[in-house]
Amino acid sequence: MKNNFDFKLLTNDNESRLGILSTSNGLINTPTFMPVGTSATVKGIMPEQIIATNSEIILCNTYHLMLRPGIDIIKIFGGINNFMKWKKPILSDSGGFQVMSLASLAKSSDEGIKFKSHIDGKKIFMSPESCMDLQVTFDVDIAMVLDECLPFPADYKSAQKSMLRSMSWAERSKKSWFKRQGKGLFGIVQGGIYEDLRINSVDMLQNINFDGYAIGGLAVGEGQEEMLKVLDYTTKLLPIDKPRYLMGVGKPDDIVKAVLKGIDMFDCVLPTRSGRTGQAFTRNGPINIRNACFARDTSPLDEYLPNSASNNFSKAYLHHLFKSKEILGAVLLTIHNISFYQWLMQSMRDAIKNKKMAEFSSNFLEMYTSTIK
Amino acid sequence: MKNNFDFKLLTNDNESRLGILSTSNGLINTPTFMPVGTSATVKGIMPEQIIATNSEIILCNTYHLMLRPGIDIIKIFGGINNFMKWKKPILSDSGGFQVMSLASLAKSSDEGIKFKSHIDGKKIFMSPESCMDLQVTFDVDIAMVLDECLPFPADYKSAQKSMLRSMSWAERSKKSWFKRQGKGLFGIVQGGIYEDLRINSVDMLQNINFDGYAIGGLAVGEGQEEMLKVLDYTTKLLPIDKPRYLMGVGKPDDIVKAVLKGIDMFDCVLPTRSGRTGQAFTRNGPINIRNACFARDTSPLDEYLPNSASNNFSKAYLHHLFKSKEILGAVLLTIHNISFYQWLMQSMRDAIKNKKMAEFSSNFLEMYTSTIK
Repeated sequence: MKNNFDFKLLTNDNESRLGILSTSNGLINTPTFMPVGTSATVKGIMPEQIIATNSEIILCNTYHLMLRPGIDIIKIFGGINNFMKWKKPILSDSGGFQVMSLASLAKSSDEGIKFKSHIDGKKIFMSPESCMDLQVTFDVDIAMVLDECLPFPADYKSAQKSMLRSMSWAERSKKSWFKRQGKGLFGIVQGGIYEDLRINSVDMLQNINFDGYAIGGLAVGEGQEEMLKVLDYTTKLLPIDKPRYLMGVGKPDDIVKAVLKGIDMFDCVLPTRSGRTGQAFTRNGPINIRNACFARDTSPLDEYLPNSASNNFSKAYLHHLFKSKEILGAVLLTIHNISFYQWLMQSMRDAIKNKKMAEFSSNFLEMYTSTIK
Repeated sequence: MKNNFDFKLLTNDNESRLGILSTSNGLINTPTFMPVGTSATVKGIMPEQIIATNSEIILCNTYHLMLRPGIDIIKIFGGINNFMKWKKPILSDSGGFQVMSLASLAKSSDEGIKFKSHIDGKKIFMSPESCMDLQVTFDVDIAMVLDECLPFPADYKSAQKSMLRSMSWAERSKKSWFKRQGKGLFGIVQGGIYEDLRINSVDMLQNINFDGYAIGGLAVGEGQEEMLKVLDYTTKLLPIDKPRYLMGVGKPDDIVKAVLKGIDMFDCVLPTRSGRTGQAFTRNGPINIRNACFARDTSPLDEYLPNSASNNFSKAYLHHLFKSKEILGAVLLTIHNISFYQWLMQSMRDAIKNKKMAEFSSNFLEMYTSTIK
C-alpha cells in the first residue's frame, strides 16, 4: 500500500518550518537536504552509504539521464529507483538548467528548447510535454516542471519574458504530467530579482496548483544578500501547506539563513563536488584537507558525526589519500560532507521543534563563519 | 593477549594444502588471496567493504609508503593498521620490485639499492637493514626480506648472481629484523627459471630459517606453463610446516593451478586494477562491462556472491556507470572482483577439506576458460 503524496506542517518557529513530506517511496523530514545523484549515482558512494549519511531523498538530473543511459534503459527497469537500487524518494529536476549550461547551441522558444547533446552532438528538442514524459517514466516521487533558466544578470524585460514563458510551460507541464499515487509535481517560481515578477509568478503557479513550489533562478551569481531578499518576499506568498524548495542552494550558511526564511527543501552539488577536490565541511567552517597542516593531524573530521568517514579516519590519513590521488579520499570526503549537511538539517529540525532556531542558527553561524574571510 | 605467529597445516589433498596462519592481528585461512592496498588503501573501498569481501589479510607496498606519507607519519600512528583503520593482518612487500619497476635510475649493488623517488626525484638508498626498519615501524604482521628483482628473460649467469645477492640480503634482513610476538618474516626464493638455482636458493633460505617462504621472480612474463614448472620443483623442497606465498600471482586460473602445486598465499593487482577499467571476473571467465551487450542486461554479475556489488546491481547499471565515467563503477567492480577471488579461495578450501580439489579445479577451469580465446 503506497503512501499518498502529502505534506504535513508539524510546527514552526517564526518563519522556520518543521514538516513531514510523504511520498510513494517513503517519508522525508523537512527541512531536508537532497544530495545530488546526477547520473543515477551520488558520485562514488553506494546507496547503503547514502542512507548511512541520514539522507532521505536524492536528486537526479533529467538532462543527464535522458542522454545516458537513455529513457529506453530506464523504462526496462521501471524507473530510476530500481535502476540504481535506491529505495527511498527521488526528485528529478526538469533539465532546463542543464540544457542551458551544458548543451551546445541551446535555443529556447515558446514551444520548448532545442539543443545538441554535450555527449554526441545529437539534436534534441525538449518541450514541457516531453519533459513530463521523461520524468513519469523515471517514476520519481517528485517531478519538476520545465522552466527556462536565465543567465544572471538579466534586465527586467528579459526576466519578465522568460518568467511568462516558464509559467506557460508550467501550465503545459501540469496538464501533461500523469498523476499517480504518492507522486508529486512542483512548480518553479521565476522572475529574477524583480519583486513584482516573483509575485506574478507565484500567483500564476498557485492558480495552476502544484504539490509543492520551488524557487528557481537563484544561486546563479546574485550573492547571498540578494538571494535572501528574494526569499523574504517570495516565501511569504507561498501556501503554508505545501513544501518549498530552494533550488541549487547551497553553502551551509546559505541553507541556515534560507530555513530562517521558511524554506523546506534544498539540493546542491557542493558537499559532493567539493568533497572530491579535498574540501571538508566542519562546524568551524570548510577546510582543505590537502593543506600541509593536516599531514600529521591524528584527529578525525568530526568525532560526533555517526559515520566512520567522519569519526574514524584521521585528517592525516585523508590528507595522504588526497596527496596520493587515491579514489578513497573522494569517497570518504563525499560521505563526510553529506553527513555534515544532514547533521545540520537534523539540528535545525530539532531546533525548530524546540523553538530554538534563532539560538541554534546564531551559534552555528558564528562558529561556522568565524574562520571564513 | 596477542597470538603467536604460527602456521597449522590442517589437511591436504594431494599437493593442495588447507591451513590456518595465526598472526598478531588475527587468523588467515589458507589458501588465501591478499588484495593489494598499495598506499594504505585498497583503491576506492573502505576497510569495512574489504572485510565484506571475506578478505582476511591485505598487502601494502613498502616502496610507496616510504615515499608517501613517509615513515614519520606512519610512526605517529604506531603502524599501518591504525593509520588506515584496518584491523586485520597486513603483509608488506619489501619494495625491491617497485624500486626496479617504478623508481628512476635504480642501481643495485651488494650493499643495497640506490634510486630516485618517482614522486619528487629525491635520491634514496635502501639496504636490507633499512628495509627491515621500515617494515618493523609499519608493524605489519608479515614482513618480506629485501630481494633483487631481475627482468625477464635473464641468462643463467645474471640469474645466479642476482639470486646469490638476494640470499645475502635475506640473511642480513633476518639479522636486522626485530622479532615481536605474532609477527613473521618471510624469505623469498629466487633463481629465475633455472632449477638448480631455485634449489640452491631454497637451501640457503632454510638455513637462515624464516616464518614462511615466498616464491619470487615469477609472473614477470615467463608464462603460465613455465611458472608451473618452477613451482613443480620448488614447492616440493619447501618445509611443509611453513606457509608458501607465490608473489604477484595472478589470474584465477593461475591461482587454481598454483594451489594444485601446494601454494598457500597469493597477491595480485588484477581484481582491483582491472576492476577500475571495467573488467569483471565471473565463473564463466572475465567480461568487459563496457561492452554494448550489457547495456540492457538486467541480471547481476553473480547472484550467489554475498555482497550487493555482485548480487544487487545490474550489468546494465554497471555498464552505464562505466560509460559515464562514474567513480562508483570502479568501486563496485573492485568489490565484486575481490569477492569473486575470495569465493574462489573459499571454494578451494572447501574442496581440499573434502578431498575434492581435483574435481573442483577441473570443473572451475573448464567453465572459467571456456570463453577465453
